Amino acid sequence: MPGAGMAENRDSPTRALRAEDVPRWDQSVDVVVVGHGGAGASAAIEAARAGAETLVLERATRGGGTTALSTGVVYFGGGTRVQRACGFDDPLPEMLKAVRAAAGRRADEDKVRAYCENSVEHFDWFCDLGIAFKDSYVAEKTTHPFEDDCLFYSGNELAHPFADSAAPAPRGHKPMHPGEAGGFLMESFLKATSEAGIGVRNECRAERAIQRADGRVVGMVVMHEKERGYIKARRAVILCAGGFIENEEMVTQHAPHLLQCNYKCATPNDDGLGIRIGIGAGGNTMNMHEGLVLNAYYPPASNLKGILVDAQGRRFINEDAYLGRTSDAILMKADGRAWLIVDDDCYGRTQGFHKLAAVEETIEGLERALGMPEGQLVATVATYNANSNRDSDPLFHKHADYLKPLSSPPYAALDCCTSNSFFGVLTLGGLATDADSRVLTPEHEPVPGLFAAGRIAAGLCLEGRTHSAGLAIRRATFFGCVAGRNAAALSPWE
Amino acid sequence: MPGAGMAENRDSPTRALRAEDVPRWDQSVDVVVVGHGGAGASAAIEAARAGAETLVLERATRGGGTTALSTGVVYFGGGTRVQRACGFDDPLPEMLKAVRAAAGRRADEDKVRAYCENSVEHFDWFCDLGIAFKDSYVAEKTTHPFEDDCLFYSGNELAHPFADSAAPAPRGHKPMHPGEAGGFLMESFLKATSEAGIGVRNECRAERAIQRADGRVVGMVVMHEKERGYIKARRAVILCAGGFIENEEMVTQHAPHLLQCNYKCATPNDDGLGIRIGIGAGGNTMNMHEGLVLNAYYPPASNLKGILVDAQGRRFINEDAYLGRTSDAILMKADGRAWLIVDDDCYGRTQGFHKLAAVEETIEGLERALGMPEGQLVATVATYNANSNRDSDPLFHKHADYLKPLSSPPYAALDCCTSNSFFGVLTLGGLATDADSRVLTPEHEPVPGLFAAGRIAAGLCLEGRTHSAGLAIRRATFFGCVAGRNAAALSPWE
Repeated sequence: MPGAGMAENRDSPTRALRAEDVPRWDQSVDVVVVGHGGAGASAAIEAARAGAETLVLERATRGGGTTALSTGVVYFGGGTRVQRACGFDDPLPEMLKAVRAAAGRRADEDKVRAYCENSVEHFDWFCDLGIAFKDSYVAEKTTHPFEDDCLFYSGNELAHPFADSAAPAPRGHKPMHPGEAGGFLMESFLKATSEAGIGVRNECRAERAIQRADGRVVGMVVMHEKERGYIKARRAVILCAGGFIENEEMVTQHAPHLLQCNYKCATPNDDGLGIRIGIGAGGNTMNMHEGLVLNAYYPPASNLKGILVDAQGRRFINEDAYLGRTSDAILMKADGRAWLIVDDDCYGRTQGFHKLAAVEETIEGLERALGMPEGQLVATVATYNANSNRDSDPLFHKHADYLKPLSSPPYAALDCCTSNSFFGVLTLGGLATDADSRVLTPEHEPVPGLFAAGRIAAGLCLEGRTHSAGLAIRRATFFGCVAGRNAAALSPWE
Repeated sequence: MPGAGMAENRDSPTRALRAEDVPRWDQSVDVVVVGHGGAGASAAIEAARAGAETLVLERATRGGGTTALSTGVVYFGGGTRVQRACGFDDPLPEMLKAVRAAAGRRADEDKVRAYCENSVEHFDWFCDLGIAFKDSYVAEKTTHPFEDDCLFYSGNELAHPFADSAAPAPRGHKPMHPGEAGGFLMESFLKATSEAGIGVRNECRAERAIQRADGRVVGMVVMHEKERGYIKARRAVILCAGGFIENEEMVTQHAPHLLQCNYKCATPNDDGLGIRIGIGAGGNTMNMHEGLVLNAYYPPASNLKGILVDAQGRRFINEDAYLGRTSDAILMKADGRAWLIVDDDCYGRTQGFHKLAAVEETIEGLERALGMPEGQLVATVATYNANSNRDSDPLFHKHADYLKPLSSPPYAALDCCTSNSFFGVLTLGGLATDADSRVLTPEHEPVPGLFAAGRIAAGLCLEGRTHSAGLAIRRATFFGCVAGRNAAALSPWE
């Protein structure tokens, strides 16, 4: 019955507050940026450089966001200083083809072009912030360079079918910092926002937008130090508040297959609040069902000589693809149950410390130990070995570099099941935006005065199965910069 | 640049009009129903029976909607008159288990219970409208009874793994009408709305809701006979305006894998306008990525003795599952490329008139003709035949009734590729609603005065791969009735 059994109010409403209902303005600036991760910092820096008085609102005790938790790999191309120093030309037309393929079937051509054509310039923007990149290249397939090296193949560039669609070039760039460099990267950004004199309110929760009757977003309602506040944005609001992987209910509604992954690549604030604030101001969402899933059975690259099989002992993907692609296949093709079958020659301990589900002297023994239907894994390995002897993989087209018969006992099965193995996950859906970082309505019109960048938006790459490492940070910073410049260029409404 | 390159306005904005901006009221009723298909007619009938002055707005020249285009199968259980006459008890606890499984991993328990507990009563509601059901049962697996018979197994009840989760019972009920009965069903509904004296405006396009500052929906903006009108809803608005499969842009944004299907089970008005109107009034959407996909290689049931294989000659699903499940697997597991391999004994011409991709005297010949990797199909058939001789299908658990070695040449491959075969498709995502048919906000609060039912809502069954025929109409009519009664019970706002 309506009225009865009112649904529990689990969160405050995010529907925009009408401007005429604002009781007072507690602060007034040109541009309000919500969220202080890679996207928000970039947006704030560029807005401030364009002369806009800028305020950043951050829910956590300090900035960093998910960027700070990442490996810090950034996807640049088109002939950066590092690429050229390492002997890679990477002409723009090839980068365009590669990014188009990495963006997925629904690549937004405007975004692809903006992203690629400004790639070298954006690399230089990083350098100008004092972020160093070493002129060095790591040839072995890896998730990221483990030392302070820079350049590597971070995606599917060398793997079927991507290798046929564009001339391969390494485009993953890691800042010159040992190991994971996301924290280092964010410290550089936070230093830059601080030096630019940008206002920052930490532990400040943005609750909802403030909107005029004509749709223009004119400010934000916030909760700060236990008090509700009303902040006027004379030019624009930029939402950079992250994704929604930490909101189990939203994931259940939109991308339930991601629930089986056990490690969220996110801060607790990736709970979709920013997306809901955008919806509440008339923004549309898209691509909410897609995620990036990450189970790293490489490095070492020798593991790619193994074969990934499902519960019936059958292969389902070329094992040398980017881990975002192989992991997606584990979920979608193998229903979350897969094992990497290796022999004594190729096995190497992984960073994710995969458990060994079984070690046996024969493939028959491995098949039994894994409870697979009789003869299936045996037939799979026999076929694979016979073709490998001819340097051929007619079933999945793994690169010849990784084709070698599995024939050196003992044989082992690395457990890549979602229930037993490290599966990182993040969301790829969010607010619909255009290449100008404007938030769009369901009718594809910009919501006046509202921008979004970073994981809060359905960005450049819309599919985990086509993704490359480095695209996430790069689209956050690049489209963050675009948002900052465009927000500062808007005419003030008063 | 913002301001420059303004996105083309492809549709009028669906954001709700503020009540204070309504220039005049052209008509005033208790309940406005948007859409006159199965859900809308049911909602209107029940609202009117509860004493509410009711008006139905229909975009087409007359009512019917997608229900009129369907087979007319309705999913009832719990011991209907027909079930009992045909010897099936179907106790409620078993129906609950079956519907829970059919609803998918994210079954809404409130909806499942309401749906099942009122199943016999809702069957009687149909009968009271003058819709006859014959006390007859069709045992052979089929999409729907082709004569005027009624009862059949319409989903996965007898197939792995569903057969283990609930005591099977046939629950598909087709009205007593030869062939497809959706048009017949809708004529009965339209007659009932007419006899109840319910107002109907045909060729009337609902454009957006009218909403007060406190969120209550109080009317609709419409376009009728080339004039914009403002219709007051004193109690509530019920959105029953269909899904979005006809809106290619929305499908691209939310469910791109459905684009490969070539036949939309829909009217041209299933373009998502109603969903966008709901969003514009603060409603949330969910499950937008899911669809029901239908490629019918049965009847005849003998075809289920064949095996469905992918481009590598490998099986990927038990062939005796409901076609919603097998077709989903063709898209998701086989990337849209599949063939049903049959022998001379089991082959039968399908209703969908599948093309024969190849006919050969040997499986080796078939494998070559289909361009499959050498030895793969041969190995698949050898394994299948050996297991079938033992009445066993350890790989996919097809029922023993359909296990028979493929050994009578010639052998044929029915083309079930999305590019060459009839693939029906419809969407399963839409407005978030509760079991009271109220539209919910992103914070799970009801939007006051707004209800939704039918394909416009993310309804009872959220996955094509668990669906049963008859659930779609039944959830439209049942939750339509719920909406109608609850709308009529709301206190008028003036």
